[in-house]
Amino acid sequence: MPFPAPLTGVVPPVCTPLTPEREVDVPSLVRLVDHLVGAGVHGLFVLGSSSEAAHLTDRQRRLVVETVVAHVGGALPVLAGTIDMTTPRVLDHVAAVTAAGADAVVVTAPFYARTHPAETARHYRLVSERSPVPVLAYDIPASVHTKLGQELVLGLAAEGVLAGLKDSSGDQGAFRAVVAEARTRADITGFSVLTGSELLVDAALAMGADGAVPGLANVDPAGYVRLYGLCRAGDWARARAEQERLCALFGMVGVGVAGGRMGAGSSALGAFKAALHLRGVIDCPVTAEPQVPLAADEVERVGKYLAAAGLL
Amino acid sequence: MPFPAPLTGVVPPVCTPLTPEREVDVPSLVRLVDHLVGAGVHGLFVLGSSSEAAHLTDRQRRLVVETVVAHVGGALPVLAGTIDMTTPRVLDHVAAVTAAGADAVVVTAPFYARTHPAETARHYRLVSERSPVPVLAYDIPASVHTKLGQELVLGLAAEGVLAGLKDSSGDQGAFRAVVAEARTRADITGFSVLTGSELLVDAALAMGADGAVPGLANVDPAGYVRLYGLCRAGDWARARAEQERLCALFGMVGVGVAGGRMGAGSSALGAFKAALHLRGVIDCPVTAEPQVPLAADEVERVGKYLAAAGLL
Amino acid sequence: MPFPAPLTGVVPPVCTPLTPEREVDVPSLVRLVDHLVGAGVHGLFVLGSSSEAAHLTDRQRRLVVETVVAHVGGALPVLAGTIDMTTPRVLDHVAAVTAAGADAVVVTAPFYARTHPAETARHYRLVSERSPVPVLAYDIPASVHTKLGQELVLGLAAEGVLAGLKDSSGDQGAFRAVVAEARTRADITGFSVLTGSELLVDAALAMGADGAVPGLANVDPAGYVRLYGLCRAGDWARARAEQERLCALFGMVGVGVAGGRMGAGSSALGAFKAALHLRGVIDCPVTAEPQVPLAADEVERVGKYLAAAGLL
Amino acid sequence: MPFPAPLTGVVPPVCTPLTPEREVDVPSLVRLVDHLVGAGVHGLFVLGSSSEAAHLTDRQRRLVVETVVAHVGGALPVLAGTIDMTTPRVLDHVAAVTAAGADAVVVTAPFYARTHPAETARHYRLVSERSPVPVLAYDIPASVHTKLGQELVLGLAAEGVLAGLKDSSGDQGAFRAVVAEARTRADITGFSVLTGSELLVDAALAMGADGAVPGLANVDPAGYVRLYGLCRAGDWARARAEQERLCALFGMVGVGVAGGRMGAGSSALGAFKAALHLRGVIDCPVTAEPQVPLAADEVERVGKYLAAAGLL
Repeated sequence: MPFPAPLTGVVPPVCTPLTPEREVDVPSLVRLVDHLVGAGVHGLFVLGSSSEAAHLTDRQRRLVVETVVAHVGGALPVLAGTIDMTTPRVLDHVAAVTAAGADAVVVTAPFYARTHPAETARHYRLVSERSPVPVLAYDIPASVHTKLGQELVLGLAAEGVLAGLKDSSGDQGAFRAVVAEARTRADITGFSVLTGSELLVDAALAMGADGAVPGLANVDPAGYVRLYGLCRAGDWARARAEQERLCALFGMVGVGVAGGRMGAGSSALGAFKAALHLRGVIDCPVTAEPQVPLAADEVERVGKYLAAAGLL
Repeated sequence: MPFPAPLTGVVPPVCTPLTPEREVDVPSLVRLVDHLVGAGVHGLFVLGSSSEAAHLTDRQRRLVVETVVAHVGGALPVLAGTIDMTTPRVLDHVAAVTAAGADAVVVTAPFYARTHPAETARHYRLVSERSPVPVLAYDIPASVHTKLGQELVLGLAAEGVLAGLKDSSGDQGAFRAVVAEARTRADITGFSVLTGSELLVDAALAMGADGAVPGLANVDPAGYVRLYGLCRAGDWARARAEQERLCALFGMVGVGVAGGRMGAGSSALGAFKAALHLRGVIDCPVTAEPQVPLAADEVERVGKYLAAAGLL
Repeated sequence: MPFPAPLTGVVPPVCTPLTPEREVDVPSLVRLVDHLVGAGVHGLFVLGSSSEAAHLTDRQRRLVVETVVAHVGGALPVLAGTIDMTTPRVLDHVAAVTAAGADAVVVTAPFYARTHPAETARHYRLVSERSPVPVLAYDIPASVHTKLGQELVLGLAAEGVLAGLKDSSGDQGAFRAVVAEARTRADITGFSVLTGSELLVDAALAMGADGAVPGLANVDPAGYVRLYGLCRAGDWARARAEQERLCALFGMVGVGVAGGRMGAGSSALGAFKAALHLRGVIDCPVTAEPQVPLAADEVERVGKYLAAAGLL
Repeated sequence: MPFPAPLTGVVPPVCTPLTPEREVDVPSLVRLVDHLVGAGVHGLFVLGSSSEAAHLTDRQRRLVVETVVAHVGGALPVLAGTIDMTTPRVLDHVAAVTAAGADAVVVTAPFYARTHPAETARHYRLVSERSPVPVLAYDIPASVHTKLGQELVLGLAAEGVLAGLKDSSGDQGAFRAVVAEARTRADITGFSVLTGSELLVDAALAMGADGAVPGLANVDPAGYVRLYGLCRAGDWARARAEQERLCALFGMVGVGVAGGRMGAGSSALGAFKAALHLRGVIDCPVTAEPQVPLAADEVERVGKYLAAAGLL
């Protein structure tokens, strides 16, 4: 199957279930994929930030891609993150995930090293040249401390370097500009603009975006698929109601933050995994090290969010 | 040889010479080690930021450690960086560099993931538990966007988790506090406090620091060894003169920035490598991708810095 | 007229026309007010960031409020910014602008001093206690380097401290949360949630926001009034088209940035004033010191944006 | 008395004692000045950050300058801060403080507005042109979120725009570069380079700095005067011991932070004022709004710091 140009729809960043010993829990991962595919999602994004890719060893990353690719058997596109600091290291990941069958790679700006926009552009050109599959840019300044400028993204789109953008920047104004130009410029075709926001999917689609990559879609894939359908049908009132239900559900990401014992990442990923465990999808809610686990009362609060959203 | 407690002296972060094809240039690396050891440095730090560790593949990292360890043959301690995002990935590097013979590991705070101080502490405890060699903390907020708090460092020192600190934070006040407490607290012994600054070695040693890890010591190791000796002898006037000569030489790191074509990292590492090439130590001044290379006139300016410092 | 609870509609942050000697140009200011009121805006916000309030002396600030209040004569509400660092200084501005007739004050978090959320809350409570008119919070982290947390804003709304929020934070997810809670919580009534974005007015209103405070409404007030009406009528397709026309027009804010001679503020405010001058509303496009003026070719490009939007 | 070129020595940023009603406590201010002058300080800096200038109304600021200038009667130079956002507002403060008798003004980069380096340079040129007294630059990125580049400072020094630099940036490397160039460049004479650090005065003077502006000198002026003398005499060992005693005393700034009830500013200024109150210099330790006051146990801990330093 050729990679869709543009890729559209709901493409969850697939969580990585772990065993209590913090190995990849393959049976749980397969059940999670079934849970997502059964709900009608349009693609799968493995090894993203919500997948704890930054916490997985190279061996574990390979196992994740192989498992998911083998299980979906080409039924829908599988995108893989290649999260690492610089071009040579990212290229090693590109080689590994494409050998394992990924249909596209999702690549952040360089990080750790202090990076100039010219170096970021060079990074994408070098990765794209040597990648056997399409490259999507992953704009996530909270993690890499660089915002991909809209001119840079659109320029690389026009060059054919980038096939799409996953925007987790939180800058909806810049996102809208990319959507508008990607749709109107003659030198850009088939470019996919996807929001990484859980909270603004209706707004992003109303602006003309192609789809969404919400971490919360692990927990409620049917909700996001329904939301996508309502937006595509132009039923904005019901779309808003569905989106607001999902916004309320998303409140779960804060259950661990209030206590001051952990950061926002531990809390959010802990909550997603606790929810998947409570819903019976995965066997164990553990997150990778050095993240701090949720306490029992925090897990209980996750359960209340699920109940309030009609998911328990 | 047991690892010194505390480690003292000049411990250059060893640059990684590359071939034009951007493979590790082993003969040049060996010559660089000879250049450093011959000048009297007290230890070697491979796979640090100045080594472009963020740009080296795992295979290249292993080759660097094996080469340097084999060449120095235990004559002086070899520390190795394990720069990666989180505990599981860092532990893979710890295993690799200690298998290759490193005498200690130098470990940053987690990055990419949003990290809470409790998670940072947990990271160091887990790495230390599973490392066969001493662990030094590497405080480099410009790269990892987290500052290691002085209480956290001192607490982990007292627990025996950390054997030392390489401070590249630029916060001399906090550095001084760590030096002062590490020397006076009864529950902390043998803890090594090293500055990563090129410009403040005399000041750091005057405050009681144990040593320095200056990237510029690749270019002028004899200068830093001389500076260290003058400080240890209490000859502060001549130390200052030597330090100021080295400060002027350090100006080379800006040769590429003015043009607006590259970032500070490309410029600084490009300048160090150009200087090593001009001094006849390494065969090729190329830096790893996606860094932008210096132009001919910028290399020429590096030569002028060398000449002004009496090194050409 | 009592202050509307909630305030709704289009409330432009009124630019402050200056003479070539950089005094307030009262006749131009009056013409600008007529231009806005004539287009049907629902309120006026003087002494905001787009008004260059940070650049106006106390005497000039007073003159602006007196002029605008006198000219509109109660026909629509006049809100005034009180931009300053801390409580005592803000209270002096509150006294001045309410003496001059302002119907509400718009107050940022403290800045310059390092401020804790408890201090920010205390600031709003103290200002509100001593203000004779309603207080709206002005969330503008790009200027004050503090984001107003949604819990803080909603808590102060429930206490009756805040009458509304002007959100210039760029964080649409948090904005949506405030809108949703302000509408559903029983302890919050009449609270006005206004977006400060030029680019996302349709999206904000679709989420349930009460109105918008877009700087670009100085240049095209009729466009924003039309956009507001289309959104209120639920005609989202035509609203989007109008919004996209305004997004394209907003491109003018970048005319000065490309040259590297000035910052984003000089460029944006210079462009708004150049546009008002080209449209014949104000006599002189000069901005306050130390901002850098646009060059002739940059002004020409502003004209092209106006022409493309059908405004020349 | 002409303003010294360069200004040298210990120049405390004078705290502003307040009454319980938060008016300037003139008798306490006079006693504080006597406490400082009696200890042998070389100048006084009023309306700086440690003076809570950001929290004082214009009327209060004027009263402070008038009081201090009248009381010292020309016996030593009085510098005054003009902390405000932009050129026109700063010029109003320059007029006020020089009318009140200040011998020099200390001026930060613009803040609140997003400022380009060219605008910062323009700001200093405009202020200097219109100031009747010398202008020192105040580099305090923690407050204004802009670092004054060393080239900018040295360029303005060479132009005669700036008479000196108060460096509160924390970047000792850049500070050293300014010191070195200011001493060696033929086109710069009489330029005063002062550190704003409490913790690094010996180090700064060893590098060639002209003096120090430490907030803690309110609490222990004799200590800083002694430290300055030891450094000037080249007695580095005793200087270090004195500096380390002051470093330990400086620990008081953290007494309020641990509780999570206040920010670092409230804690530090609260501690300085509590110490002055405990030492009998000022009548009331209150800080300006919206700062949070220290609790009784926190004040007690301030007392322990004083006792440990031999000051109670």
